[in-house]
Amino acid sequence: MTAQNPALVLTAYCANRAGIVAALSKAIFELGGDIVDLQQFDDAGTAQFFSRVVFRGASDPIAEDAARQALEPVMAQFGMKWSLSIQGARRRVLLMASRFDHCLADLLYRWRIGELAMDVRGIISNYPRETYADLSFEGVPFHFLPVTKETKPEQEAKLIEIIDSEQIDLVVLARYMQVLSSELSARLAGRCINIHHSFLPGFKGARPYHQAHERGVKLIGATAHYVTGDLDEGPIIEQDIERISHRDSPQELVRKGRDIERRVLARAVRSHLEDRVLLNGSKTIVFPE
Amino acid sequence: MTAQNPALVLTAYCANRAGIVAALSKAIFELGGDIVDLQQFDDAGTAQFFSRVVFRGASDPIAEDAARQALEPVMAQFGMKWSLSIQGARRRVLLMASRFDHCLADLLYRWRIGELAMDVRGIISNYPRETYADLSFEGVPFHFLPVTKETKPEQEAKLIEIIDSEQIDLVVLARYMQVLSSELSARLAGRCINIHHSFLPGFKGARPYHQAHERGVKLIGATAHYVTGDLDEGPIIEQDIERISHRDSPQELVRKGRDIERRVLARAVRSHLEDRVLLNGSKTIVFPE
Amino acid sequence: MTAQNPALVLTAYCANRAGIVAALSKAIFELGGDIVDLQQFDDAGTAQFFSRVVFRGASDPIAEDAARQALEPVMAQFGMKWSLSIQGARRRVLLMASRFDHCLADLLYRWRIGELAMDVRGIISNYPRETYADLSFEGVPFHFLPVTKETKPEQEAKLIEIIDSEQIDLVVLARYMQVLSSELSARLAGRCINIHHSFLPGFKGARPYHQAHERGVKLIGATAHYVTGDLDEGPIIEQDIERISHRDSPQELVRKGRDIERRVLARAVRSHLEDRVLLNGSKTIVFPE
Amino acid sequence: MTAQNPALVLTAYCANRAGIVAALSKAIFELGGDIVDLQQFDDAGTAQFFSRVVFRGASDPIAEDAARQALEPVMAQFGMKWSLSIQGARRRVLLMASRFDHCLADLLYRWRIGELAMDVRGIISNYPRETYADLSFEGVPFHFLPVTKETKPEQEAKLIEIIDSEQIDLVVLARYMQVLSSELSARLAGRCINIHHSFLPGFKGARPYHQAHERGVKLIGATAHYVTGDLDEGPIIEQDIERISHRDSPQELVRKGRDIERRVLARAVRSHLEDRVLLNGSKTIVFPE
Repeated sequence: MTAQNPALVLTAYCANRAGIVAALSKAIFELGGDIVDLQQFDDAGTAQFFSRVVFRGASDPIAEDAARQALEPVMAQFGMKWSLSIQGARRRVLLMASRFDHCLADLLYRWRIGELAMDVRGIISNYPRETYADLSFEGVPFHFLPVTKETKPEQEAKLIEIIDSEQIDLVVLARYMQVLSSELSARLAGRCINIHHSFLPGFKGARPYHQAHERGVKLIGATAHYVTGDLDEGPIIEQDIERISHRDSPQELVRKGRDIERRVLARAVRSHLEDRVLLNGSKTIVFPE
Repeated sequence: MTAQNPALVLTAYCANRAGIVAALSKAIFELGGDIVDLQQFDDAGTAQFFSRVVFRGASDPIAEDAARQALEPVMAQFGMKWSLSIQGARRRVLLMASRFDHCLADLLYRWRIGELAMDVRGIISNYPRETYADLSFEGVPFHFLPVTKETKPEQEAKLIEIIDSEQIDLVVLARYMQVLSSELSARLAGRCINIHHSFLPGFKGARPYHQAHERGVKLIGATAHYVTGDLDEGPIIEQDIERISHRDSPQELVRKGRDIERRVLARAVRSHLEDRVLLNGSKTIVFPE
Repeated sequence: MTAQNPALVLTAYCANRAGIVAALSKAIFELGGDIVDLQQFDDAGTAQFFSRVVFRGASDPIAEDAARQALEPVMAQFGMKWSLSIQGARRRVLLMASRFDHCLADLLYRWRIGELAMDVRGIISNYPRETYADLSFEGVPFHFLPVTKETKPEQEAKLIEIIDSEQIDLVVLARYMQVLSSELSARLAGRCINIHHSFLPGFKGARPYHQAHERGVKLIGATAHYVTGDLDEGPIIEQDIERISHRDSPQELVRKGRDIERRVLARAVRSHLEDRVLLNGSKTIVFPE
Repeated sequence: MTAQNPALVLTAYCANRAGIVAALSKAIFELGGDIVDLQQFDDAGTAQFFSRVVFRGASDPIAEDAARQALEPVMAQFGMKWSLSIQGARRRVLLMASRFDHCLADLLYRWRIGELAMDVRGIISNYPRETYADLSFEGVPFHFLPVTKETKPEQEAKLIEIIDSEQIDLVVLARYMQVLSSELSARLAGRCINIHHSFLPGFKGARPYHQAHERGVKLIGATAHYVTGDLDEGPIIEQDIERISHRDSPQELVRKGRDIERRVLARAVRSHLEDRVLLNGSKTIVFPE
């Protein structure tokens, strides 16, 4: 991307049929666009077509609005669900954490050095600010939203207020150890990423490292997924593992797990911010970076 | 190991207390032994001590019997469960397979080039010999033991007969797709290794690659474990994974899985044959090679 | 792919400019084709466009010749280098080995179970047939072509004769431990794959596992690359590694390396056979499977 | 470890001969010690014996001095080089960085949450404090020591002064992009760890990610090693890699590399701080954690 001639990112999906790529690429060409990257996936099971196209003006820059207008007819023709955005445009993100701050600290670091195209609009925790005494939030508003079973509706109402007023594009549960209500999960469908500290579907629920130690597995892992009403069942975006041994106590699994969690979550967030993740029912398509 | 002065491998475990290593190493030293390798593990949870010691004669070779006699008192003193064997001595092994032969072919290849210290005393399948028309069994007896729900007791009786008459040390279920009865599982406790084609505890039971595809995981794996009466719950010896993507159909997972399965099973069998695996309740200790 | 309506695989590259994808996909659409998979890569450094397109008839099958004729004009328009083939069509392959047969045995196994779309037209070695006494070649002609410094020109002449008469598409050096002359390397450019037993560019040349042991690295690896006149400098197709430790002797590195070598070579051969590898100067583009 | 009864860590090496473990474990037993962990390695090539023993008082705590006195005779008997320390005792560490702060930030984070047993006694850079404006140093003194070819002797003199006055145990070059003089390297032998951003011995020297991109490798890596006078040739402590593709520009390799570098360096520092690394000529023994 050059600042003068920014690229545009189109994601689109629809029922599959012949001629989609031809129609799409023709529209982009007639708009004066040069396709920089095109990735597609035909799901044989569901007969759906998914694609992500990056293009920019071959000679002159293309305005987002002009592109939108030019693409509208072809999108309508194929009944496509689609989105268009300027490559590298920063999304408005809310970070949520609880007692452990390794994922939060890592995301803030990556944001600061420009690795993640996001504007952090707020940090929310059910723990008070002093929990993160050593973390600089660099001017980002912090919201202490404690929660109990009884106060959850009320707490989530405050949360929704922040999400709405800040026009949040993405909520990241960076080891936020509270389960969202199914109403809130539904409202945030496809724009709320959680990190679970096991290689799902193994070790759902609480204390997965202790479960892993108990079972005697030789690998531990972490899973980043979109949040759905069904706990630990949301569409998986990214997973990774590390080798462990009988020598590792649960505490050592927790320590080793921190490294896995932070890199898995960061990769998932990055993929989402770059419009490389498309939902496909209860699964995801993640186009390679 | 040199043929002239072979090393001996001692594995031993007992309730932990002070002085075990001192007593053990003193006995070996007084026997004229030089410790080549010593690995130990104290399980803080169960307060058990586990060790594996490799030693050989410092000047003259040590006979297995002499070593056994010399070690007996110290073993008795600590109430140890122990085993002693000549390093590299070949174990009597039975390989069992069903329709797919990738694990079987791989184990036979490794055996042929001397990678695994075993004598393959028999190959058993519920499929006839022609299933493996292109595999050379190199003189190893093949037993076709078909099985149905009704004939299982009878089939397992034949199996036990072979195991007993051939004095089998280790049974390897190399993608043998039949569940052993709990009586047989109990009888083979700690000397029967199975390969399951998922990273347990995820995707137990049938068709794990199809389950994995359905769930949309980003990694698939395989697990080698000792067989117990509890299907897919036995002590895990080895696991490994590979990265997959949304592009992989269940058939492609099956293909990619073959590579994972064969290397995981081969590593587990090797670890077992080298006396590097100790049972610790429902878990294992695998001393590094 | 269905047998009745086979897919066609087009690979094409040229100097990059706007409109290539539009022109290409239009030509395929007008031919009655449905694009099943399209992958592209714009090399920003060399300003080249690379692509691989899989398509099949949307209703009726498309004959290879018809596709070739229909695509010719658009290929000419952009000055493209291109190839077209039926997906899954078997390539004519020559396997070459020396003393160690683990890569040879592995490729033959994968071929037999249908993992690799190839016809093995010959097996060549500078060792006699009895070296592989336990390997079934299943009717494939074996050629014993011993070689010394003095007889190399003569030996390579025989090799070329086989390559030509058998119309070989791909030569695989499956741990063939002889260096090809630069004439032969040039003649086989882009259709001869070698496996080197180190993670290049580390440990070029002879006895890489001994070099690795000497240097004390904590990972060992293998590299599959196209053969060029420059030994161990050809375009890399695939690499992988495994973790080792101070406990591993050179002999153990050799053993562990066998597993890495065979899977790296098999992946590279598979990628090549599926037309997923494109040469880009001294590098490769490997479109994901 | 319990605070009341801390464990002691002994590392020892000498020319190998029979009876070392027996003598060592006897001395510890007579001291009232219980061996918690014992790892050993016999280097067949150099005929050296290496070991690391963790022990604590079986009933009463053992004082470090008492242990030292009790062990002295057996150490002398075998001509051992040895060290003894209290497990978890914090070492005095100096962190050095240049323009990029990802390794520095990561080490500081791990230190803050108690993952690394160290006292950070100083942070040194050839860049001024404002380079790390967003990093909290939490009271650790920062020394800005700019350096040119001409001022290097003088700069290193200041560095040595800090090392000496602060009684530094370990210097960590956390992407400090200056080559130490061979005098300083020699002085810091075995107590200065550097992170090199390639999988050595591939891509020594400057701009390794650009070299890697140029060569077209499919994996990039990082290497943590002790600093010696021979640049990029010091004993390797830890290495790791990640898979890349033709899509990755040098800038993307730099980004992906940051994650590898920080985890490789952190593992190496942790291994060193836990006395799990022993030098073996130009190589290391790293006992597993």
